[in-house]
Amino acid sequence: MTQPRQQPLYDIAELCAKKRLTQAVLCPGSRCAPLTLSFARHPKIQTRTISDERSAGFIALGIAQHTKLPTVLVCTSGTAAYNFAPAVAEAYFSETPLLIFTADRPAEWIAQQDGQTIHQPGIYGQHVKKTFQLPQEYEHADSKWAINRIVNEAINLSLQEPQGPVHINAPFREPLYPQKDEVIAFSGNVRVIEDFAPSFGLTEEQKRTLSAAWPTFNNVLIVAGQQHDDTNGVSSLANFFHTHNIPIVGDIISNVHVIEKVVRHADVFLGQASAAVKKTLQPDLLITFGQSVISKNLKLFLRDFAPKAHWHIQPAGIVADSFKSITQVFHTTPPSFFNFLSTLQSTDSFKQQKQENFNKFWEVEERRAVRTLDEFFPQQELAELEVVREVIQQLPPDANLHLANSMSVRYANFIGLTAAQKDIHVFANRGTSGIDGCTSTAVGHALVSARPNVLITGDLAFFYDRNAFWHNYALPNLRVVLLNNHGGVIFKMIDGPGTMPESDEYFITQQKLNARKLCEEFGFEYLKLDNKRKFKNLLKDFFEPDGKTKVLELESDGVLNKAIFDHLKQKIHKSYEL
Amino acid sequence: MTQPRQQPLYDIAELCAKKRLTQAVLCPGSRCAPLTLSFARHPKIQTRTISDERSAGFIALGIAQHTKLPTVLVCTSGTAAYNFAPAVAEAYFSETPLLIFTADRPAEWIAQQDGQTIHQPGIYGQHVKKTFQLPQEYEHADSKWAINRIVNEAINLSLQEPQGPVHINAPFREPLYPQKDEVIAFSGNVRVIEDFAPSFGLTEEQKRTLSAAWPTFNNVLIVAGQQHDDTNGVSSLANFFHTHNIPIVGDIISNVHVIEKVVRHADVFLGQASAAVKKTLQPDLLITFGQSVISKNLKLFLRDFAPKAHWHIQPAGIVADSFKSITQVFHTTPPSFFNFLSTLQSTDSFKQQKQENFNKFWEVEERRAVRTLDEFFPQQELAELEVVREVIQQLPPDANLHLANSMSVRYANFIGLTAAQKDIHVFANRGTSGIDGCTSTAVGHALVSARPNVLITGDLAFFYDRNAFWHNYALPNLRVVLLNNHGGVIFKMIDGPGTMPESDEYFITQQKLNARKLCEEFGFEYLKLDNKRKFKNLLKDFFEPDGKTKVLELESDGVLNKAIFDHLKQKIHKSYEL
Repeated sequence: MTQPRQQPLYDIAELCAKKRLTQAVLCPGSRCAPLTLSFARHPKIQTRTISDERSAGFIALGIAQHTKLPTVLVCTSGTAAYNFAPAVAEAYFSETPLLIFTADRPAEWIAQQDGQTIHQPGIYGQHVKKTFQLPQEYEHADSKWAINRIVNEAINLSLQEPQGPVHINAPFREPLYPQKDEVIAFSGNVRVIEDFAPSFGLTEEQKRTLSAAWPTFNNVLIVAGQQHDDTNGVSSLANFFHTHNIPIVGDIISNVHVIEKVVRHADVFLGQASAAVKKTLQPDLLITFGQSVISKNLKLFLRDFAPKAHWHIQPAGIVADSFKSITQVFHTTPPSFFNFLSTLQSTDSFKQQKQENFNKFWEVEERRAVRTLDEFFPQQELAELEVVREVIQQLPPDANLHLANSMSVRYANFIGLTAAQKDIHVFANRGTSGIDGCTSTAVGHALVSARPNVLITGDLAFFYDRNAFWHNYALPNLRVVLLNNHGGVIFKMIDGPGTMPESDEYFITQQKLNARKLCEEFGFEYLKLDNKRKFKNLLKDFFEPDGKTKVLELESDGVLNKAIFDHLKQKIHKSYEL
Repeated sequence: MTQPRQQPLYDIAELCAKKRLTQAVLCPGSRCAPLTLSFARHPKIQTRTISDERSAGFIALGIAQHTKLPTVLVCTSGTAAYNFAPAVAEAYFSETPLLIFTADRPAEWIAQQDGQTIHQPGIYGQHVKKTFQLPQEYEHADSKWAINRIVNEAINLSLQEPQGPVHINAPFREPLYPQKDEVIAFSGNVRVIEDFAPSFGLTEEQKRTLSAAWPTFNNVLIVAGQQHDDTNGVSSLANFFHTHNIPIVGDIISNVHVIEKVVRHADVFLGQASAAVKKTLQPDLLITFGQSVISKNLKLFLRDFAPKAHWHIQPAGIVADSFKSITQVFHTTPPSFFNFLSTLQSTDSFKQQKQENFNKFWEVEERRAVRTLDEFFPQQELAELEVVREVIQQLPPDANLHLANSMSVRYANFIGLTAAQKDIHVFANRGTSGIDGCTSTAVGHALVSARPNVLITGDLAFFYDRNAFWHNYALPNLRVVLLNNHGGVIFKMIDGPGTMPESDEYFITQQKLNARKLCEEFGFEYLKLDNKRKFKNLLKDFFEPDGKTKVLELESDGVLNKAIFDHLKQKIHKSYEL
């Protein structure tokens, strides 16, 4: 028996499996048949078929967040590839590994009016770490070598820091299916190129610089940007922060809520504090790690009250200067960095006292925010913010909390998680902050994780991405809290659009749907939250792990939500007058 | 009162209006506020808000097909822009004008971890005719000049042959909304750059070449590629084709069905005819115009039985060599070309006789196909092909017929339109042949055209693009015929995937939905086609112009549909044995 012509393609699945890539999301099509068949038939690879490529891309993203390995993503030729693009951009900016195969016609058939043919090479622009083109002939030994090398290189690159998506455009000639005498089998001796990461430990130069600089600063502040799952293991360093009286500010998406004294409510109080108060909170030295922060108030505060020095810790890659203040970049990991700092004991008691006072200023503000929030709730009328608060407080243990853009993640950040909720992991698509794949990303998690996955979302994000559910896979561990105000309430919340006469039509974009029909369509349990007294019981039913996908919907008015949110802001503002 | 800082932006709407661009599709967002407000407030521009940018892009495409002018398309920053991409690629390859504005953050804020920020300049790659970047400051007179010039140039370029999408990336600084003392008004004296197209009449050189070459060919065949609406006015040349005995082959998407003797069923008979029959149909000279053809059988025939010469008529732009046979490209319009040819009378009676014989061969095949189809129907069991046939035969006068990819457009091409159906206009997204925006494109037409708009679609295309309906605009003139076989039946029809054990899961992609819930959700009338006897009455109700959006759904089995389609092919095959 001769080896099938497409053996080098079938061996891609074998190589992926050997590299521990065991999750593949396949989108239907004929051009991609050689890859579809090889992944579908590989015993070590779990494949799922998702028809809407836009959702498929985000589902793959969610799976990659869970597995911490590139998800294989396969589509046919044509605009299918473009439908992956929103998820690819999110993966790029959130540094999530993806291995994207776009099947293509042979190069000579591009723009020759054959069906489903567009210009695919380089289609994702700067939103992939690299784009590769597979050879389209397999006769020459160099082609076979190149296919193996390219896929090895792509996987390795995807996992190098900063991680991210890589794209392989794969032109296939017909016949696309195995011939009668051909059997799809996987070669045992597929070459794997192992890629050993550098240490990212502190260098001697970094140590010398830190040893000299560290004693010269008072008023040190740490800000944790987004990390999934506390991937950096920063929470284990809580002791260092506490003993050195260094305040650490963490948004809900930073996943450092387990640190007892973390400042969780910077967004709450920095929005209302006076300049005089803010002055007391101004750091001399700012230390940051992780990705973006949600809090616009925190960003504005740090830009207005800039530190003298700003050290950013990041193993590799281009650095974003979100606060306009970076002065030193340390290419290392946060644990390496902070563990070394903890060896540099200061004996200057004046300095220690200053840092202690600085820490107290932050603690006071944090306590004020918590107290105001605690006094504020419950409100008479049930509105979104309170629903978010209850849901977050009642989250089942060991849950993934998924926060959709735009208001849901802001509400949740206003509320925050407690240190006791240590086994809650928070996810949000903040690489690009789109609404286009929030549900699909949560679905991706639910498909591969045994944990309860709780998504809090608004109606625009929810209905935009409803094809997240359009497939044949059960989601018994998915719970969706839908805050339906029939439009983009964020446009009421931010200054500007709310005052325009065009507001309802062009910014809020009123929409009429609720989730009842969608639940009927997909066989989900629908829980309507229309009575405040029943809320606690409803929430209990909602979280009950009984094998059903459930949607809990609050239909409420944007005006009410804005009024309550404004009222809370006033309360916080007033708390400074006491 | 001082002029608002953003006056140059507001004047974009004025310029568009002056250039007769009166249709704008706006997608919600804050970054795009300056454009949203200026278009929404301009008295001569009709704006619509569509939340899902993917659907919005295709709706804009449909509108542009109707108005024959660029539709203005506006979105906010971030992945919103990428969601336009499938429609942009379709517009590029189908040569449909679009003026796409993507709002952006100022350039210095790209990749600095601010929300909804990706690399937008050049984001559509080779799928726009050009990509522009607006200045982000307006103080200098040169900036104001540049904004006006860029928008003028973009509109002009979009309308130059070949027409297509142009992209303007528009970075905006805050504040995005007018300040208290600012009023949005439109400057009266906005400069318009008028762009006068070249004549595209035949040049003297072309005439000399044609005069010399034309008499040297026997067996001339014309193939019409896709044109919307017979934009080329080829139908008026029917007399020339007939008196010269030149067969003209036209797919259903060529919109030349009004020509009495057009060969409508090439796809039907070329799939079954023997090589000997095909040899009699082989042209010496092939003349083509328009875009792609659907029929794979026609493509294969022309590649296998190549003409000695192939003249392609196209006013401007890169030429696709779909049949691998082009020898001369005439940059002119089909009417100019054919009108000149008609002046070149041949007096050679032997030649005339040869051409007459050649024409008869084609006529015989066309008649054979029509006869076989007529004998074949009605079938005992109601399947998709027969539904398509009935729907096409019963189409209301002056309707737009929209054909979704992939099987719907193939079915419809098998059936064809008659010469009597002269006021039927056929549309299909064959630039990229995607399923991602077929419904939205039809919706775009329905929004701006008073005609009945009838969409024939399969279930994958229909549910993929269901957000086509997610907006607040009534569609009283839209009728959807949904051929629901709960999966991509095309994968049963083509060779290869049907024989794979993975077929149902990975190629056909079985899906469970039907349209009932969707109709309830959007308030559409749902007509279920489950009884053959009732079909004619149901179709009457369906087409009744009573102000309701209606969906007529046939749920049928892919196996049955394939069996009937195969049976028909056998009948055609057998027709050669008699």
